[in-house]
Amino acid sequence: MMAPSPEGSDDVLWSDLPKGPLSVYRERASFSCRELLLFWEGEDVLRFKKMIFSALENDPLFARSPSANLSLEKYRELTFLRCKRVFEYDFFNMENLLQSPMSVLSVIQCLGMFDWSLAAKCVLNVLVFGTAIYSSGSQRHFKYIEKIYTMEIFGCFALTEVSHGSNTKAIRTTAHYDPATEEFIIHSPDFEAAKFWVGNMGKTATHAVVFAQLHMPGGQCHGLHAFLVQIRDPKTLLPMPGVMVGDIGKKLGQNGLDNGFAMFHKVRIPRQNLLNRTGDVTPEGTYVTPFKDVRQRFGASLGTLSWGRIAIIGMSVVNLKLAVSIALRFSATRCQFGPTEEEEIPVLEYQLQQWRLLPYLAAAYALDHLSKSLFIDLSRLQQDLRRGDGGTAQAELGREIHALASAGKPLASWTAQQGIQECREACGGHGYLAMNRLGDLRNDNDPNCTYEGDNNVLLQQTSNYLLGLLEHRLQDGARFKSPLKTVDFLEAYPTILGQKFTGSSMADWLDSSGPLVAYQWLVCYLLQESHQKLNQEKRSGSSDFEARNNSQVYYCRSLALAFMELIVAQRFHEFTHGPGVPPSLRAVLERLSALYALWSLNQHVAVLYRGGYFSGEQAGKTMEDAILHLCAQLKDDAVALVDVIAPPDSVLNSPIGRADGELYKNLWNAMLQESRVLERASWWPEFAVNKPVDGSLKAKL
Amino acid sequence: MMAPSPEGSDDVLWSDLPKGPLSVYRERASFSCRELLLFWEGEDVLRFKKMIFSALENDPLFARSPSANLSLEKYRELTFLRCKRVFEYDFFNMENLLQSPMSVLSVIQCLGMFDWSLAAKCVLNVLVFGTAIYSSGSQRHFKYIEKIYTMEIFGCFALTEVSHGSNTKAIRTTAHYDPATEEFIIHSPDFEAAKFWVGNMGKTATHAVVFAQLHMPGGQCHGLHAFLVQIRDPKTLLPMPGVMVGDIGKKLGQNGLDNGFAMFHKVRIPRQNLLNRTGDVTPEGTYVTPFKDVRQRFGASLGTLSWGRIAIIGMSVVNLKLAVSIALRFSATRCQFGPTEEEEIPVLEYQLQQWRLLPYLAAAYALDHLSKSLFIDLSRLQQDLRRGDGGTAQAELGREIHALASAGKPLASWTAQQGIQECREACGGHGYLAMNRLGDLRNDNDPNCTYEGDNNVLLQQTSNYLLGLLEHRLQDGARFKSPLKTVDFLEAYPTILGQKFTGSSMADWLDSSGPLVAYQWLVCYLLQESHQKLNQEKRSGSSDFEARNNSQVYYCRSLALAFMELIVAQRFHEFTHGPGVPPSLRAVLERLSALYALWSLNQHVAVLYRGGYFSGEQAGKTMEDAILHLCAQLKDDAVALVDVIAPPDSVLNSPIGRADGELYKNLWNAMLQESRVLERASWWPEFAVNKPVDGSLKAKL
Repeated sequence: MMAPSPEGSDDVLWSDLPKGPLSVYRERASFSCRELLLFWEGEDVLRFKKMIFSALENDPLFARSPSANLSLEKYRELTFLRCKRVFEYDFFNMENLLQSPMSVLSVIQCLGMFDWSLAAKCVLNVLVFGTAIYSSGSQRHFKYIEKIYTMEIFGCFALTEVSHGSNTKAIRTTAHYDPATEEFIIHSPDFEAAKFWVGNMGKTATHAVVFAQLHMPGGQCHGLHAFLVQIRDPKTLLPMPGVMVGDIGKKLGQNGLDNGFAMFHKVRIPRQNLLNRTGDVTPEGTYVTPFKDVRQRFGASLGTLSWGRIAIIGMSVVNLKLAVSIALRFSATRCQFGPTEEEEIPVLEYQLQQWRLLPYLAAAYALDHLSKSLFIDLSRLQQDLRRGDGGTAQAELGREIHALASAGKPLASWTAQQGIQECREACGGHGYLAMNRLGDLRNDNDPNCTYEGDNNVLLQQTSNYLLGLLEHRLQDGARFKSPLKTVDFLEAYPTILGQKFTGSSMADWLDSSGPLVAYQWLVCYLLQESHQKLNQEKRSGSSDFEARNNSQVYYCRSLALAFMELIVAQRFHEFTHGPGVPPSLRAVLERLSALYALWSLNQHVAVLYRGGYFSGEQAGKTMEDAILHLCAQLKDDAVALVDVIAPPDSVLNSPIGRADGELYKNLWNAMLQESRVLERASWWPEFAVNKPVDGSLKAKL
Repeated sequence: MMAPSPEGSDDVLWSDLPKGPLSVYRERASFSCRELLLFWEGEDVLRFKKMIFSALENDPLFARSPSANLSLEKYRELTFLRCKRVFEYDFFNMENLLQSPMSVLSVIQCLGMFDWSLAAKCVLNVLVFGTAIYSSGSQRHFKYIEKIYTMEIFGCFALTEVSHGSNTKAIRTTAHYDPATEEFIIHSPDFEAAKFWVGNMGKTATHAVVFAQLHMPGGQCHGLHAFLVQIRDPKTLLPMPGVMVGDIGKKLGQNGLDNGFAMFHKVRIPRQNLLNRTGDVTPEGTYVTPFKDVRQRFGASLGTLSWGRIAIIGMSVVNLKLAVSIALRFSATRCQFGPTEEEEIPVLEYQLQQWRLLPYLAAAYALDHLSKSLFIDLSRLQQDLRRGDGGTAQAELGREIHALASAGKPLASWTAQQGIQECREACGGHGYLAMNRLGDLRNDNDPNCTYEGDNNVLLQQTSNYLLGLLEHRLQDGARFKSPLKTVDFLEAYPTILGQKFTGSSMADWLDSSGPLVAYQWLVCYLLQESHQKLNQEKRSGSSDFEARNNSQVYYCRSLALAFMELIVAQRFHEFTHGPGVPPSLRAVLERLSALYALWSLNQHVAVLYRGGYFSGEQAGKTMEDAILHLCAQLKDDAVALVDVIAPPDSVLNSPIGRADGELYKNLWNAMLQESRVLERASWWPEFAVNKPVDGSLKAKL
């Protein structure tokens, strides 16, 4: 039994960590794991997550079976059954979600820690489909939201087509209005315009929010609108007339989710099924819209886009947390080589292994903080908008959040993808064994780089935002100023650009304030360079389209990423240095903050030198020394830091990553539970009897 | 029909490329695809590969089935049946392999292009198991090699244990000699010492080459030796008494191959089963060895290690070739956005897409050349050794090749792994669809980073080699000189370190000679820095073990990688600038050479500035300009360059990468062939009838 926690919280919140090979590192930790857990999550969230994890742990439907033996069909059935069970537990309780938006993030993350297929299946139905109806529809559509909860219907969100993803304006599905019957006719002109990749559409969904070009009887096209289309009969799950709907097949990951396609052959739906928040059609066939201003209509929709992107930041963070938890527990128990031939030491003791893994641990914390803080920002904006407070301030906030979400999603998903790969390799062969889960994490995280906007395309939103502000300043003398103040430092850019790094020792880098100053210079430099590059392209005769395309590599793309890294580092710095941090946690959190900032900045050293911010050998060297120094300082805290972010063993589901650290025992136990481990192969007579005759078919060549 | 090739070779060597959407790019190519193909592969290799591909294409056993539906058991059965068929075709014809070592590489690559599980299964049995017997055994063991070909036995190679991979010296399986019965007793002390990860051991192998610590009756231990151990009865495939052998379960990839484990409980094998090339035991129990010198014995074994690593370079190259083939054909046919709202352009026209993919195309060519040239170097060394020519010159050559293979394997496997990931993302959602194969490539290439030595650990072999040479020079005044001349330039290192980049325009970079000069400086600088760092660590009281560990990150590791990149770039430069290159191919090959060298060097710009080789903004900028300029020059050649390295469609097996470029048609065809695409799910009543009651289980929480 552990002593009651110093904060006096009840023991329901804690699970005792088992004694074992990891205890050595746990005892060396510079802080109390419980204290950090409570500080990091807050008691409410902790209680809520614990409730979800306990439910999963105690319900046999969520018991893990060796995935090797699940066919695609069986895996999807199991995922669907679990999805139903999630409704029975009411994790997506509507009242709760509205009252505490943060709990949405918690539910997604807990289910995702268990299995992204399940999380995606629930989220696409309840949140994406549901929110599309709620935010794009009106009173007459809200009954469908109730039907989601009773599972009278099951929803999906159909925007992407086979031949159009990023370029949504070029979507080719049509919706022609027929005033004679007061119906829309939904139609796919050919199979290149089939809806594609739609999650839940493959086997389950009865209803889809379908995006189509709205055509009026007079021939006028009003652009993309969303329509509620029934695609299957809920009584039979057979397709509705005119709908060819099917499954797109196996993906690299998330195979418990049924992604599908649909082609519509002149499918008629009632006029009322147009989700009419931004535009409606009268029975007679007149188009009406409440928005006078296209820009305003566009601004209103940016908020919705940001939800998806910010959710993906959170999803990526979960994957990174799981991967570093597995790899660091493995590294603390796996011994290989040592100072003498007899004595072997944990691989975590090697500087190289620390350098490979600890920056990703720091990134998991820094990006987790970003994810939560952006979620709060966006929730506030949504509240303002719901209060009808949709003025210029809100539009500006919407644009700023959009810029942050559009670069935050690429940064988080890439960091997670690279981190998972590094963790896989850092676990050597054992990382390549499917049961240890790093493969699933890599495969399940991968689409985060693509959906809700390809990462490279999304980054342009952020660089465009920054370049637009600069242009506005140069043309109109406007100040750099934004509601969340993320761009305010740019106001001083002429001064900042004149700065040079004057430090001379490693100590100059050991607090994150050091790298932050360098980051501000870096962003100013890249902003100026990108702006010049764009102008130079235009002066040399390029169209706007060409100029922008030819300014991405080494310019706008780098600008967007560097800006976002600065924001992540800045927010984490402020959080870890704030007055609310308990004194006993300050040291470890400040080290994480410095390590993340330095390690990220280290990718840009070439630019720091090239632009003149750095000069001489020392600047770069002291920075590298600082990174390694922080790694060494953090390695004894690593296991305890992982204990704070790792879910229970049954959810983490990785023999080499279990909390008891009994690496080899757990591996053997899991392995011997797999199917037919020791049994001879069913096809043994193919070896024993039917011998090949070497070269017998050579004549056929 | 295409016109006969200018070289007059017969048409058997060519397959006509289908007309279609890719024709536009093919017509724009600056060179003849046939001419490059013939020049790149040579007629003999081309004919040999064509023969293998045709056999695969025409044999229904090698027809592709949607992998989604293959269970682990079925996939392994299919792989075994295909392996038997490979013997029937006699692709591993022993005489052929001995006469033309290059054909070994061709067979591995052709089978690997088809499926790595199959290639690995064959290679582990015939080449790894067979070569181990051939090179570690003696006359009395050679009968087993014949038995491989008649499939009386099936082999595996058992070195790694659960708890020891990289540190092979710490292997704990024992072989005690019992003179009473003239037998060895093979024993696994506990399950941490079980042989693990052994390919073919899971379900198939009857015999294993087992590495164990040789103990003599007197108690003396002579270290690791190889023993031939029968593990299953060939008549039944049931385990032999005392052998607990089984399957380690699902891996991230290569699941057609059965990786296994084995624990030995006092298993007795005849004395003759010791593979006795480097040491033998007399019937009475005396240990005898032909080697007087441990160093010489060690040197002799380095050659064998290099085979595996050089094979992996070739395997990685195959994966990179397949991935860029898929991604570039996709990029040339996938249109998205454009200068006007109506007109969309292929994504290959975007500078960003070119920059993401074309350097990997260049890397595929450069590393392919490295793979072949190292293979030739090693074959020559083997020939010398077989002629008994095992003097100092051969030992030096062995060490040099070992250093190249030990860094070449990490460089090639990482480049492939990163390249495949970039290709996956560059194909957006379609890259995430399993049928397009990028997932399999990523999963199948992944272990190349781990087996035959973890990449980071292997790099130390190379940096140790270079640091040893420097030490030898400083201590004994020895010259930098090696049989393949890869280190000879280091002789001038004091002069080279004084050099500075003096170029001022992009033109200074457009030939690979530019980056090569910079690379030489870089390697000298990193060598000097690593040497200083090591000494500084030692002076501050670190043991040799600690000093080496603390000099890897930013020093020795960077040194090994930079040195290897230089070698790859240098060899490719010499090849592309050699007199044998047909004039019509020079331009495109020289561009590939420059792009690979520049793109690789670009990772080190921070060091170039920091060490004073670069100064001012222009150096870095002109280099980036050159990379983008070369990309733009190569984009119209990309499709033709892919045609040279891509296998036939049936082997490439990727709807979005087919040679006809009919992206969407191929995608639909393949998708509709998957199982139950349009059928409703078997579990439909779980939706239609058994509705969940929202919140019904809430009370249980």
